[in-house]
Amino acid sequence: MKITGTFLDEISHDIPHQNWGEKEWERDFIAMKEAQIDTVILIRCGHKRFMTYPSEYLMKTMNCYCPPVDLVDMFLRLAEKYGMTFYFGLYDSGKYWMQNDCRKELDISKFVAEEVYKRYGKYSSFGGWYLNCEVSRAYTGIIPLYAGLGQFVKELSGGLPTMISPYIAGVKAFPDNPITIAQHEKDWDEILSGIKGAVDILAFQDGHCDYEELLDYLYLNKELADRYNMKSWTNCESFDRDMPINFLPIKWEKMRLKLEAARKAQVDKAITFEFSHFMSPHSMYSSAHGLFDRYMEYIQEL
Amino acid sequence: MKITGTFLDEISHDIPHQNWGEKEWERDFIAMKEAQIDTVILIRCGHKRFMTYPSEYLMKTMNCYCPPVDLVDMFLRLAEKYGMTFYFGLYDSGKYWMQNDCRKELDISKFVAEEVYKRYGKYSSFGGWYLNCEVSRAYTGIIPLYAGLGQFVKELSGGLPTMISPYIAGVKAFPDNPITIAQHEKDWDEILSGIKGAVDILAFQDGHCDYEELLDYLYLNKELADRYNMKSWTNCESFDRDMPINFLPIKWEKMRLKLEAARKAQVDKAITFEFSHFMSPHSMYSSAHGLFDRYMEYIQEL
Amino acid sequence: MKITGTFLDEISHDIPHQNWGEKEWERDFIAMKEAQIDTVILIRCGHKRFMTYPSEYLMKTMNCYCPPVDLVDMFLRLAEKYGMTFYFGLYDSGKYWMQNDCRKELDISKFVAEEVYKRYGKYSSFGGWYLNCEVSRAYTGIIPLYAGLGQFVKELSGGLPTMISPYIAGVKAFPDNPITIAQHEKDWDEILSGIKGAVDILAFQDGHCDYEELLDYLYLNKELADRYNMKSWTNCESFDRDMPINFLPIKWEKMRLKLEAARKAQVDKAITFEFSHFMSPHSMYSSAHGLFDRYMEYIQEL
Repeated sequence: MKITGTFLDEISHDIPHQNWGEKEWERDFIAMKEAQIDTVILIRCGHKRFMTYPSEYLMKTMNCYCPPVDLVDMFLRLAEKYGMTFYFGLYDSGKYWMQNDCRKELDISKFVAEEVYKRYGKYSSFGGWYLNCEVSRAYTGIIPLYAGLGQFVKELSGGLPTMISPYIAGVKAFPDNPITIAQHEKDWDEILSGIKGAVDILAFQDGHCDYEELLDYLYLNKELADRYNMKSWTNCESFDRDMPINFLPIKWEKMRLKLEAARKAQVDKAITFEFSHFMSPHSMYSSAHGLFDRYMEYIQEL
Repeated sequence: MKITGTFLDEISHDIPHQNWGEKEWERDFIAMKEAQIDTVILIRCGHKRFMTYPSEYLMKTMNCYCPPVDLVDMFLRLAEKYGMTFYFGLYDSGKYWMQNDCRKELDISKFVAEEVYKRYGKYSSFGGWYLNCEVSRAYTGIIPLYAGLGQFVKELSGGLPTMISPYIAGVKAFPDNPITIAQHEKDWDEILSGIKGAVDILAFQDGHCDYEELLDYLYLNKELADRYNMKSWTNCESFDRDMPINFLPIKWEKMRLKLEAARKAQVDKAITFEFSHFMSPHSMYSSAHGLFDRYMEYIQEL
Repeated sequence: MKITGTFLDEISHDIPHQNWGEKEWERDFIAMKEAQIDTVILIRCGHKRFMTYPSEYLMKTMNCYCPPVDLVDMFLRLAEKYGMTFYFGLYDSGKYWMQNDCRKELDISKFVAEEVYKRYGKYSSFGGWYLNCEVSRAYTGIIPLYAGLGQFVKELSGGLPTMISPYIAGVKAFPDNPITIAQHEKDWDEILSGIKGAVDILAFQDGHCDYEELLDYLYLNKELADRYNMKSWTNCESFDRDMPINFLPIKWEKMRLKLEAARKAQVDKAITFEFSHFMSPHSMYSSAHGLFDRYMEYIQEL
């Protein structure tokens, strides 16, 4: 099972910044290409007051800071140059949708989507949308948020695909009270039936359950996606959730286990969160260089 | 706004050691010079039982361990060689001043200052004193400690300047109960009126309030310093306080925001905590190399 | 005091993986050789579901995952090539011995030892056993576990030496309730009298007490070992327990203090946990490169 997509973690919640300029980013796109990555997904275009591109709208309405570089433009150009598809991750207020005001989150995101598509839609690499409010359960308001946003951006962009990447409310998310697989199916059946047609790709994060539970979740998530005519991708996390340092690159053996499970479950595509910190030969964490080497050996044997 | 000074974080409380020898330190002083740094500030000469120089006094009275290398001598020589001014940070018992026994802390620090000035005062690079008991509020005993120590070392050294680097009791120091700007003014007006003449430089740390509050604090701190005839510096932290790993280099965009705020507030000088771990092209954290590159691009445009 | 042995931290509990292949491991064995290391100790051959070698037994009984590489074979070959003695660390279920079912842990470990010795006993580098249930006190069941296991593997292997590496229940293990030195003696006198003859080497970890307490503990541990006719080694930890990041390489000064204390106490040998992450010129943490350089300067002066 090859990883053919990666998130681009700008703006980051919890992963320290590498302080790369365009030269370093281009070097990393070249490494992605070497690793056969064809899809890059901007995880979010902004979070609270920080942004990846100079949005007039967000500066005015959310008091966002004008960034030193237009990363969206840079990523789109690099994706174009290296033949990759770019998915645009929408804005995350860090508050409204978390405080049950999904309506407000939706309104902001629509304005952002319009502004962005007008500005960057010209790039041939602009190939999809990432709906970035990541949840694990059927929280109040999340269905109309995903559905409303998905429909809106698809209409805006002539039907470009939309993707979500939820997490499993498993033992590594809620150690004291992990979800059961039956409850997971119930929640996600409800969510997916409500967002059918608005969301094209369901890419669950694969790191919150135990390794021995993963295959069952992957089978189920594939079945759920099939049921609502969605693609089933796996978001194979390349950082280690089992260590006291949050977060460093994962042990290759664990990643291989997760990829093999995804292969068995016949998911449509594997992506990762994320190449540049955790799998890149240019990462600030040199164990990522080792992970890259081990991964490259693995895919050469496939 | 250029950063023209840096702390030297020996002895460290909470930043892992790089295990550099003199060769690596000289290499880093060369990088500092390239970045136009003209001032280096030893954050403390000792903490609890660890020391930066073989103090007879501290070995005898505080049972300190004799260090393998005399870092004070080395830093003074390197500062001399590269044309920098060195500020000497005093001893921190890690207990007396924190247990309301500032009198005892003061007594120890005076002995240390005498010993040190006798030993190292000959270096032309010995250019100031850093009074290192860092506080955010008008804690009992801190005024006589700063005042007594400042007067003592100034008299001892023919009036060499003295510096403090307090922190703001803001949301990143006390998330549940951050100080108001009005209370900050009240506290620091009281402190500064009590230490006037004994302290020459007020260099607040800039990392404990939110980015959008910083400019107001910088204005106020400048005004407070002016009121008591002190210099107003900013201690622009080069590590990131917003991440789960404590601490890795800051995202350049955040540092730029803080420097731009300092420029607007017209502070007299910017220093950082600290170059060698968080901004140096030789740091153990390679995201510091990126921060150095981004910073150098920035100052070339100034 | 030279460090002439190191643990190999596979499988790790809490140290992120470097993702090395055989090429990188060989490079590191060459660096160990340069540092005069003659002993390598696999800390455990498996933990919960992860393993270092493809154990039929553990796959069948404990549902372990078949590892991508046979690390035991690789380590034994490298040890042979570079003239080192390899100690084999047994399996850790992560549950039975921690839940007072030491009998079950013992049964599993015996099967593992048999399987392993049959498979790898041919290597001339196979030179000892590491009994890996690390404790600090006389917990119920630990005496029969150590004694039973030690006797078993010694008989199995023609008397190859056995080693344990307990920790001191000191202030860095139990900050609120550290053990007294008198209680430590009482506990360990009881344990050692019960495992006499089954355990040959007592290698206490040196990082859980304060630096100023260490010499007393080293003297006592040496005396305890002598009393029961065991060798007294020190496990000189090369990571720093005093920092908010768990764990990065230790400050050289601290390691030197601990080695000097071991020299004074005349322990038989010093080993470390562990070279490859924390002291190696090839470590993912570049402060380890500095630690290697400082350590090499130190041993050249001995």
